[in-house]
Order: sequence, then structure tokens, then C-alpha cells
Amino acid sequence: MSSAAAASLEKPASTSVWTRIRTADIRDVPNIRRLIWQMAEFELLTNLFSATEESLSATLFPSHAPPPFLSFTVLILELSPAPFPQSDGEGDSPAFAPIVRKLDLEAPVEDPEAKDFASPQGGEAVVAGFVLCFPSYSSLLAKPGLYIEDIFVRAAWRRRGLGRMLLSAVAGQAARMGMGRVEWCVLDWNMNAIKFYEEMGAEVLPAPRIGRLSGPAMQAYDHGNKEDAAKKD
Amino acid sequence: MSSAAAASLEKPASTSVWTRIRTADIRDVPNIRRLIWQMAEFELLTNLFSATEESLSATLFPSHAPPPFLSFTVLILELSPAPFPQSDGEGDSPAFAPIVRKLDLEAPVEDPEAKDFASPQGGEAVVAGFVLCFPSYSSLLAKPGLYIEDIFVRAAWRRRGLGRMLLSAVAGQAARMGMGRVEWCVLDWNMNAIKFYEEMGAEVLPAPRIGRLSGPAMQAYDHGNKEDAAKKD
Repeated sequence: MSSAAAASLEKPASTSVWTRIRTADIRDVPNIRRLIWQMAEFELLTNLFSATEESLSATLFPSHAPPPFLSFTVLILELSPAPFPQSDGEGDSPAFAPIVRKLDLEAPVEDPEAKDFASPQGGEAVVAGFVLCFPSYSSLLAKPGLYIEDIFVRAAWRRRGLGRMLLSAVAGQAARMGMGRVEWCVLDWNMNAIKFYEEMGAEVLPAPRIGRLSGPAMQAYDHGNKEDAAKKD
Repeated sequence: MSSAAAASLEKPASTSVWTRIRTADIRDVPNIRRLIWQMAEFELLTNLFSATEESLSATLFPSHAPPPFLSFTVLILELSPAPFPQSDGEGDSPAFAPIVRKLDLEAPVEDPEAKDFASPQGGEAVVAGFVLCFPSYSSLLAKPGLYIEDIFVRAAWRRRGLGRMLLSAVAGQAARMGMGRVEWCVLDWNMNAIKFYEEMGAEVLPAPRIGRLSGPAMQAYDHGNKEDAAKKD
């Protein structure tokens, strides 16, 4: 390609954004809750939604939390029209250095929710998505892995490679930590997601089924280890 | 029922065993490895088996391990023809008191593997099964749960309620810890397992699919956070 042709393909500066993936801290809880709500809407599961800012803070950011990726871990994806300032250091984890990139867009993106999702770290940055993962274990491999419970990008910002960035961040971290694998569930009807994961090099395995005990059926096992509690219902 | 009728239903003492579920410690590693091998055989996955005693010890019983149920946790099921002695205390966890029961059997059980699976805690006890679980997280509930990676009873001891005891121990613990749910995968073809779980009060949900990155496809994400690494293969 001639340099003239290459130049004609360059995007104007106004269609670039900077992306940053960093570990979440407790200041991110209001945004995390709104993102989980949107995800519940997408998956038609709002009937199960009961997360509050208090319960998210207590369970995701307890005092004396283990380092990231050794327990429940949230990574936040932020976008900024200007380069990110040096981090204020307050939420930075020595186990995960923020991943910053410049992203060229084909056209400016209209984000009607930008104000609702302002970054708590200031500047003009907005939170565009998140991933929630935690350590899993493969006994066959005798190795830990990472299980991705949630991966979500807000509607305005989809189809621009941001989901790929989030999954890559987790996969890269698992590889660096010497883990055996990264796994997640894919809704069977979500062909876009299946295609996306396969393009990223993942296997999408045929379905096991999920067993689940919750609510009263689980509580029934609490008293004196009644292993036959369920039979009595 | 008259007391005479009740007496006639009592089993002779020789067909009773004592069962104990306790947290595993590093002395259990050789038995754990053999149990995982048998499970791999049952699931036709021996091609993936690469667990060694060293790798199991390092990943399941690291120095400074968190308390049970806050990280990877193995519970061991033991059987003994005589009541269990008081624990030697060495492997006991304050977070999980051993669950001891007397189990009446319809007939004595022939266990050809008894010698291979002697309990490291001595006596005449044998290890009959195990469960491996770790904390999971539901963002909709903003609550931790427990995910059961493995639940296994050796062939000689199946169909006697022991799997039920193991699952009950995990479900009871999750309930006591205020967790939201217990989940596990069920192989689609294993109708015995599906029936067993449903009888215990669990839902067996329709299949999501499992996405998995492992091996070279995962390692490809390690270098400089190449989110497009998979494309280059």
C-alpha cells in the first residue's frame, strides 16, 4: 500500500478513544450495580436481581480482601476522549497493571448513558463494561483456572472489540498466573456470543446441565445436616 | 408400628458402618489423586488427567491456605467398621466440624480396594469418596455460593446414600455461611445423576454451553495483552 493510500485510511483524531481496563475498587460499586442490572435485562433475569450497593460492597470489597484473581474480582472497562491521566494509585493492584489502549472508531459513538456511567476516577472517562471472574479448579489438571461469571459491554459500545479486550485481559492474566484454563457459560441461543468466543480461539463445548440448590431447597440442609431434608417437603 | 415389629426391622450390628465427612489435609493427597483418576475413568476423561501428588499438594494445600470454603476445598468421606476415635485434631478445621453418622447396610459390602484407600488417620477406616468445591459468585444476588467441581463415591459404595451425604454437607455449609446457592455441572447423559439431584430438591437447568480457553489458545493471550492473538494462528 502506498503511503498516500495509507494516509487516506487514517481516521480523524476525533474518532479515537482511549480504553483502560483496571481492577475495580469500592468506588465503582454504583456503576457495577447498574451494569449488573443492564445485564439482567439482556438475559431476561431481572426477576432474580437483588443486588444492592451494600451487598455488592460487602461481598466484592470486604476489608482484608485477597489480591485480585485469588477471590471474586471485577475488572472495569473505561473509555476516555483524552489520554488517561496517571492513576491516582488508590485502587491500583500490584497484581494487575491497568491495560491502556487507543481505539480508533469508524464514527463517533453516541452514548446516551454517559452521565450515568461517569468514572469515579474523574476526567471525562465513562465506564463502558466490566468482567467479573473468580478462581476455579480443575482436579484432572490439578490446576486453578479462572471462571468468568459476567462479561458485559453497554449497548452503545458493542461491536467495537471491547468484549474481546475484556476476555483477553482475563485470559492473559490466567496464562501469566500459570493457570490451566478460563471457562464461562454461554447462553445456548446467543449465537453472536458463540461466534465471538470461537473467533477468539475458545472451544464452545456441548452442553452439560447445571444442577442448582438455592432458596428454601438449600436452606433445608442447614439444620443438623439433614441429608434427607428435601424428601420431607 | 408395634415395638416387636420395629425390633424385627433392626439390622444386625455387623451390617452397620460409621461414616465421617471431614476436611481433607495434605496427608490425603495420595487418596485424592486415586479418587480423581477413578472419576476420570468414569467420565471417559483420562486423556486429560495430569494431576500428580506434588501438583495437588501445591494447589489444594498451599502454605497459608485460606479457611475451608473460602478457596478450593476437599471434603473426604470415610467409612469405618468401628466408631471413629476422637480426631487427632491435626487436620481439623474450626470452620467445619466433622459429620459422623452410623449407616445401616442391607448387607456387608465387599470393598476390593479397601487396602489402597486406607485412611491416613489410621484405624480401620477407608476413604470411600470425596467432594471438591470452591466459592462462586452470583452478581444478580450479590452473594457468594459454592460450586461443586467433583463429587465422587467409589464403585463398591454407591447406591447407599453416600453421595447424598456429601452433597448435603456442602449445601448445609453454604446455607450456614449465608451463601446464595450451590451449583454443579451434570453430564447430560447421566440420567441416574439427574434423578438423584432432583430427588434432593435441586433444579437441573437446561443446558447453557461452556466456553473454554486453555492450552495454546489461552497462552496466546499472555504476551503484551494481544487481544487479537487468536486471529494470528
